[in-house]
Amino acid sequence: MSPPVQPPVDAALVSKLQEYGQEHLLQHLDKLSPAERNSYEKELNDLDLAEVCGYFKRTVSSVNEAEGEKLDERMQPIPSELHGAVTRTPLEIIERYDEEGLRAVSEGQVAVLLLAGGQGTRLGVSFPKGMYDVGLPSKKTLYQIQAERLVRLQELAQKMHGKSGAIPWYIMTSEHTKEPTMEFFATHNYFGLDKENLVVFEQGMLPCFAFDGKIILERPGKLARAPDGNGGLYRSLRSQNILEDMKRRGVQYIHVYCVDNILVKMADPVFIGYCISKGADCGAKVVEKAFPTEAVGVVCKVDGVNQVVEYSEITLKTAQKRNPDGRLTFSAGNICNHFFTAQFLRNVVDDYETGMRHHVAKKKIPFCNEEAMTVKPEKPNGIKMEKFVFDVFQFSNTLAVWEVIREDEFSPLKNGEGAEKDTPSTCRHSLFSLHQRYLLHAGGQLVDSEGELLPLIPSPACAPKCSENGNTEYNNNATQKELSWDENPVVVEISPLVSYAGEGLQELVANKKFTCPLLLSDTRETKHAAATNGAN
Amino acid sequence: MSPPVQPPVDAALVSKLQEYGQEHLLQHLDKLSPAERNSYEKELNDLDLAEVCGYFKRTVSSVNEAEGEKLDERMQPIPSELHGAVTRTPLEIIERYDEEGLRAVSEGQVAVLLLAGGQGTRLGVSFPKGMYDVGLPSKKTLYQIQAERLVRLQELAQKMHGKSGAIPWYIMTSEHTKEPTMEFFATHNYFGLDKENLVVFEQGMLPCFAFDGKIILERPGKLARAPDGNGGLYRSLRSQNILEDMKRRGVQYIHVYCVDNILVKMADPVFIGYCISKGADCGAKVVEKAFPTEAVGVVCKVDGVNQVVEYSEITLKTAQKRNPDGRLTFSAGNICNHFFTAQFLRNVVDDYETGMRHHVAKKKIPFCNEEAMTVKPEKPNGIKMEKFVFDVFQFSNTLAVWEVIREDEFSPLKNGEGAEKDTPSTCRHSLFSLHQRYLLHAGGQLVDSEGELLPLIPSPACAPKCSENGNTEYNNNATQKELSWDENPVVVEISPLVSYAGEGLQELVANKKFTCPLLLSDTRETKHAAATNGAN
Repeated sequence: MSPPVQPPVDAALVSKLQEYGQEHLLQHLDKLSPAERNSYEKELNDLDLAEVCGYFKRTVSSVNEAEGEKLDERMQPIPSELHGAVTRTPLEIIERYDEEGLRAVSEGQVAVLLLAGGQGTRLGVSFPKGMYDVGLPSKKTLYQIQAERLVRLQELAQKMHGKSGAIPWYIMTSEHTKEPTMEFFATHNYFGLDKENLVVFEQGMLPCFAFDGKIILERPGKLARAPDGNGGLYRSLRSQNILEDMKRRGVQYIHVYCVDNILVKMADPVFIGYCISKGADCGAKVVEKAFPTEAVGVVCKVDGVNQVVEYSEITLKTAQKRNPDGRLTFSAGNICNHFFTAQFLRNVVDDYETGMRHHVAKKKIPFCNEEAMTVKPEKPNGIKMEKFVFDVFQFSNTLAVWEVIREDEFSPLKNGEGAEKDTPSTCRHSLFSLHQRYLLHAGGQLVDSEGELLPLIPSPACAPKCSENGNTEYNNNATQKELSWDENPVVVEISPLVSYAGEGLQELVANKKFTCPLLLSDTRETKHAAATNGAN
Repeated sequence: MSPPVQPPVDAALVSKLQEYGQEHLLQHLDKLSPAERNSYEKELNDLDLAEVCGYFKRTVSSVNEAEGEKLDERMQPIPSELHGAVTRTPLEIIERYDEEGLRAVSEGQVAVLLLAGGQGTRLGVSFPKGMYDVGLPSKKTLYQIQAERLVRLQELAQKMHGKSGAIPWYIMTSEHTKEPTMEFFATHNYFGLDKENLVVFEQGMLPCFAFDGKIILERPGKLARAPDGNGGLYRSLRSQNILEDMKRRGVQYIHVYCVDNILVKMADPVFIGYCISKGADCGAKVVEKAFPTEAVGVVCKVDGVNQVVEYSEITLKTAQKRNPDGRLTFSAGNICNHFFTAQFLRNVVDDYETGMRHHVAKKKIPFCNEEAMTVKPEKPNGIKMEKFVFDVFQFSNTLAVWEVIREDEFSPLKNGEGAEKDTPSTCRHSLFSLHQRYLLHAGGQLVDSEGELLPLIPSPACAPKCSENGNTEYNNNATQKELSWDENPVVVEISPLVSYAGEGLQELVANKKFTCPLLLSDTRETKHAAATNGAN
């Protein structure tokens, strides 16, 4: 049986594809239904081949130029006057930053911008990461936690400065995360936020290329496409007129962050106040690199220009370089937590964005073989082109770095349970630990069912199990109660509606005793909680 | 059928037990064979009830005194002139320490003392931890690695100072680890060490007590006993005349360490040279506490007296206290890696040991019930009494602290595979990473099968997997090759016989390319390796 006769492809489309060497994309049209074929031809017609093939060419040539080049000789740390640290700053100055940040909030000058285009592939879920519940007593999702931190921060700003400013929340999603994200917020009444202040937009996708410059066909009628990296932000800001929206609202400062950090201080007033006080157009919140070979990019200068340098771009010697005081010379570990002025973003979008080069990620990209079957390759067979949000640091005139304490501010959700790090469990425990510290600082006490004080760290490392024969391993810490993380973790959760960062707890907890699990919640959240449970 | 008539118990024994309220130990004698009964009565006769019941009384009273007491107000950090750090010391001074340490080795003044009485309960093995093979390409056990480091260090000392000094190796085992340890070394020809320089001795055991002061009977004819903690060292040094042996050999400096740290620098000449140059009688190698709530004891002073303070003994506020430079005030994290002068140990053993109080560990101790069955309790039902090796710091006149880089020197094996940390995998990877750095510093290169340079850190955090639909999560590190820890770890092992701490590699590896797995070994070890394989 011979296949039915196919109508010919529009000549203009054929010639456009030929011009850019992409005529292979017309293979296997006979496998498509008329509707599929229609939609595919439309996709091909809409594809700006000049743009995307241009990206490919420039990207490949820049990779070839940079091949193996190390940056060591050209690097300098961020000057110390622009590298502040919460651990080295007197409390009264930190309070001044806080006040300045809250002032900006109260005047409606601050927005947050969430990078949430990634799918939870490594986490093993098919919905947006922000909808993930890491297993807190409240069952709150990352989105809800973040929303409630904004609610509380708006209140704090109003309380301190007597003015009520909203913090608009821009959420950059991707093709796959936009709809579920919008639905999720709607279902939950925006967790107490004003719906008008939530702006969900979508980042772009780019075709994936084989090494020879051919766009990869994933299956008949479908190009392989990938999001253009979190630095796709800038292209989207332009294409979706986000900067206009910010201008209309009077936003001057933007806090950009990634969805997966359960401890993220939304619109952190200390960080924002610090950046404002330094006159910075760009800011990076960082954590001190824990050890020389830690897999984290560092914020520094290269030939005098601000940049995030990845580990692969330097030699071991530079990674291990230390100052006389023993600190690593390149210690500003990037945690994807940034400050930008609205003016800076306008400059980027107007003047620089189109000229920024993509980074290359070699990937195993499923492709359509001669038999029209989709095949997953064993080895990388092509590239994805990405930009990173920090790629714009190079355009900054004054980039300020603010170093925070890792256990207070950074615990990302990246992997599924059972992985070595960055799992739901580690996130949950980071939050419990932080909230336990808030409680203790406010004068509260945690006791067990018999009224005995709980140790601050129920570390499995100090609680060997009894063996059958009555022997144990050495125990360097015999004075602690025998607890292990899994058997009896300290579970303390404080609703963001009650406290943003430990403030306001004294009147609630001082000189009181609490048992675990402890959930300090607010009357306002009952209705959201009910809705959340229904949705999870 | 009535039981056979039992011979009466010796009246002197009965009266001795009654004097100390321990006559319950004579229960269930009818369950024993005559031989069992004989041996049990001998055990009871030998038991120094005055001593052990005295320990119990003093321990309990000290616990009651100290209940809930926090040390915060009484603590001071180790003075900075006695708190050296490898990260803050110029290279030429470190080299001077190294030379001094090697001089002491070459003159036979240095011994190592291994604390190896613990069983591998948490690790899940029934043999001594030192016999564990964490899965290195060479299949070497911890004991072999340690032995070969000694062999190499002796050579280095001889090379530098022209004299050949042996490093005697004292190994404190327990009832359960002594025989297998001795057999293991004998089977493997002492891994190239002189048999005469290996001294295996045994730490004591103490009966376990119920809270009411009664010694716990585990089953008819058997007391519940437990090792007396790694601080049982001092009692054993006395009871087994180890200090005499040291004196006879001319040992002046002793490096004490725990068996489980795969990176341990045996008789570390830099540490020893540093302690000697400070005129210290006592030294503690430490790592900087990574964050305020890390579960690690800190070396400090309490009321001016040197001590290791556990986390449970201080409040959160003190744990979080920082110096103006941002460092934690109490940062000297104890890793059970100590220096003592022989004279100091003699003073301890002669003057202080018997007066030192035990620590209490509340435990679930299996006991014999009315029906003569052994029962495992659900809750702690008694105590074990332990001393810690660092308990003697209080007697030091000059205690010097030497802070080293954690990733270079500390990676303990505590838990079985799958635990959160301190597993065979983490140990193996720590060693590979250190040896990779040795290789790179010496000018060697690691390449993959296609000749491309391997990244220094094949971090899973920067290598998202391709998903079926061609999308990935955000990737902050696109320039690295796509590798993940498990798929393709960098495997580099350098025999201690080739290099103790990176020295001597340049002539072997500079400007050469290597592929993984890489094992740099020495001709001398072939025969041991064969024997090792046979035994594992």
